[in-house]
Amino acid sequence: MAVAPEMPANIMAFFDTPTPEAWLVEASNRVPELLLDHANCELKAASTALGFLYRYPDRTELVQRMSRLAREELRHFEQVRSIMAELQLPFERLTASRYAGSLREAVRKEEPQKLLDMLLTGALIEARSCERFARLAPRLAPLLGKFYKGLLASEARHFEHYIAFAKSECGIDEAAIDERLVELKQLEAALISEPDAQFRFHSGTPL
Amino acid sequence: MAVAPEMPANIMAFFDTPTPEAWLVEASNRVPELLLDHANCELKAASTALGFLYRYPDRTELVQRMSRLAREELRHFEQVRSIMAELQLPFERLTASRYAGSLREAVRKEEPQKLLDMLLTGALIEARSCERFARLAPRLAPLLGKFYKGLLASEARHFEHYIAFAKSECGIDEAAIDERLVELKQLEAALISEPDAQFRFHSGTPL
Repeated sequence: MAVAPEMPANIMAFFDTPTPEAWLVEASNRVPELLLDHANCELKAASTALGFLYRYPDRTELVQRMSRLAREELRHFEQVRSIMAELQLPFERLTASRYAGSLREAVRKEEPQKLLDMLLTGALIEARSCERFARLAPRLAPLLGKFYKGLLASEARHFEHYIAFAKSECGIDEAAIDERLVELKQLEAALISEPDAQFRFHSGTPL
Repeated sequence: MAVAPEMPANIMAFFDTPTPEAWLVEASNRVPELLLDHANCELKAASTALGFLYRYPDRTELVQRMSRLAREELRHFEQVRSIMAELQLPFERLTASRYAGSLREAVRKEEPQKLLDMLLTGALIEARSCERFARLAPRLAPLLGKFYKGLLASEARHFEHYIAFAKSECGIDEAAIDERLVELKQLEAALISEPDAQFRFHSGTPL
């Protein structure tokens, strides 16, 4: 697959498995559903970031960064909602996708593995979103494509914050972190590439 | 009690019962606890605003406004956390205060009364916070007083958004809304003026 000209080098280097071409074709043809799920994803991303504030309230650096991330995701949520309102697309809450549900299930229950896994899955979700923004942008109508490029510029470094906190906050040695990241990357790659009956922002290859 | 020079006219006009002088004296002498509870209040306010997004997702105007309010409360949370970090004050989550707990209990369970009560109690909490910012600011150290004046400028119109939504979103006639607001104002006035064993940002007269 050709590299999208908008793809940031750090995102490109992070993933071994690109979004399947068939998903990109499907997404270009299902923009209303794409936007609806995207709005839902931004809201969920904000809530996930706030979850760190409630679960680890005394970790000032983590809390301050996650609060800023939550604000940014909320601003993007509002922007997607505005585009949906202009297009007269109704909003509704969606159930968790296979992608988010499976990654959440992979988070271990005991600390500090729980924090590590939450941060690493957060990194994967942020990075994959950017990878899809970059590949989708040239295939969308100009205004929407421009909007997605803007989101990409704004979010392309989020995953690095998550990775940095995985290294600084968990007290787990770097080799073990890298090993866990490889495992979770394999799971994530399967989720975005295996056949998927449901179309979502992070779904797999369309059936 | 003399009117604080910083008190916005709309806040002044909204309340019949001012913050007791004894609370202001107490708060000026317990700044670390004030800041800790204040940070907690900003986080809870953000979560409350987000609750509207989850509960009433299809009401675009309400959702967009509440998302913006949540972002603003999170920014203030970060600012209070920064001040606490500079003063080397540790952060911890606090249990619900008498004030927040009692107002929450007053929210009726059935719609549209539930939405109305959530909006009216939201207005009361926002307005009371501003009333206390205005009265506290001149009593605090200059930098902190300036920060509280800034928050006041930023938040002084929040309660009016809540009241406007109470009128536009609930399908309840204005006389019934006014009547309910009078009831909730009486409850709120009791909570901020009756003796209170616990010191909090919204506590009553210190024992």
